[in-house]
Amino acid sequence: MTSSDKPGNAADAPAESTGATAVAALDWATAAADPQYRAAVVDLLGALAYGELAAFERLAEDAKLAPTLEDKAELAKMASAEFHHFERLRNRLAEIGEEPTGAMEPFVAAYEGFHKQTAPSDWLEGLVKAYVGDSIASDFYREVAARLDSDTRSLVLAVLDDTGHASFAVEKVRAAIDAEPRVGGRLALWARRLMGEALSQSQRVVADRDALSTMLVGGVADGFDLAEVGRMFSRITEAHTKRMAALGLAA
Amino acid sequence: MTSSDKPGNAADAPAESTGATAVAALDWATAAADPQYRAAVVDLLGALAYGELAAFERLAEDAKLAPTLEDKAELAKMASAEFHHFERLRNRLAEIGEEPTGAMEPFVAAYEGFHKQTAPSDWLEGLVKAYVGDSIASDFYREVAARLDSDTRSLVLAVLDDTGHASFAVEKVRAAIDAEPRVGGRLALWARRLMGEALSQSQRVVADRDALSTMLVGGVADGFDLAEVGRMFSRITEAHTKRMAALGLAA
Repeated sequence: MTSSDKPGNAADAPAESTGATAVAALDWATAAADPQYRAAVVDLLGALAYGELAAFERLAEDAKLAPTLEDKAELAKMASAEFHHFERLRNRLAEIGEEPTGAMEPFVAAYEGFHKQTAPSDWLEGLVKAYVGDSIASDFYREVAARLDSDTRSLVLAVLDDTGHASFAVEKVRAAIDAEPRVGGRLALWARRLMGEALSQSQRVVADRDALSTMLVGGVADGFDLAEVGRMFSRITEAHTKRMAALGLAA
Repeated sequence: MTSSDKPGNAADAPAESTGATAVAALDWATAAADPQYRAAVVDLLGALAYGELAAFERLAEDAKLAPTLEDKAELAKMASAEFHHFERLRNRLAEIGEEPTGAMEPFVAAYEGFHKQTAPSDWLEGLVKAYVGDSIASDFYREVAARLDSDTRSLVLAVLDDTGHASFAVEKVRAAIDAEPRVGGRLALWARRLMGEALSQSQRVVADRDALSTMLVGGVADGFDLAEVGRMFSRITEAHTKRMAALGLAA
């Protein structure tokens, strides 16, 4: 998609929290000499890997709701793209000597919790979820990518490459609202619920995973600053609000 | 997988019905000059394409039942492979000037009927279904491939390439029966039900689609010989019985 389709990307916001990004100039081998950094990256890759596998499952599930065979094929294609992202992350974990399952397991509950609380009841809710979920996850991982060594950063940015969710979802949702304006109100509520659930699950993960949280707030080694995490979540929420407005939904 | 893992492949049986396979020596451009042949191939590609898309969906669904993250990833991988097969078939339909959706639609009801009647209730049933379903479909399409022009035959054989279902399923099912022999009885009943449902849906398709049926029985242009279709189904059933025995299941 072109950038004009995606207003309010959180990456556009001023980076207020780039206090300790010296690691960005290092490669993996050098950066990983710090065991705390290494643990944070393993957490991150594990979280991202399980997220891709969960996204595969949900998109495949949503494909069942597709009104036409073309739409079904489109969702299956996205699901398959997520699976290939998962494979890259899993292979990377293995390459750095980590057991991929062990790295993913701490994040299973948060993703399952999110998906359980946000099972779409129809095709449009599924599309909005794919769009919102994908955008929030991208914003979050892009914030984090700025704090990563060059090798990990390339991989993370590569698997965040748009798999086509966004433009496909935006087009279909806009058409549905044009055809039936009342649909907009229902989907706006739905998007708000998705965002709330995503924030609550993320905060749970951040509170649970010290190494990851420490990295998020700029590598402050002696504890993590919840206020800074809060500011990051604010930037992501703001970007979400702008995207929803562009979609014709009040966020 | 090696051929020794897959006893009783129907292709091993003597080809009793290869009366009219002259088309096998032709390429697509030449063979497709016959409108009846062309219609049969469009049917076949449409049926195969929708079958792959449906297989994608079912494997993704079964991935939810996986007892471990590794098993889940293994099923997601198979699902993704089926999706890529679907893409090749859909692209081929477009290439020969056919609307892929139109070609697939006549077969949606049969596949949906099959999957609705055979929703696995646990992980092992899902694996047996993937194995049995994949093997029967392969046997069927291999029987048909012998009657196809060289271009279509290459494509059909390429998308039948084992996606890894068989060896993965066989290994897991054998281990489960070793650990708990009573499981074998339940899975044997399940496999029999799968076979019955597959046959009943296939016969429905054969009865509905004249062009396809005519090709199946050797290109007899003036009608189709149900007895010959019956013999093909017998060969497929026999191969299934041998596979089940090798798996430790009485078919």
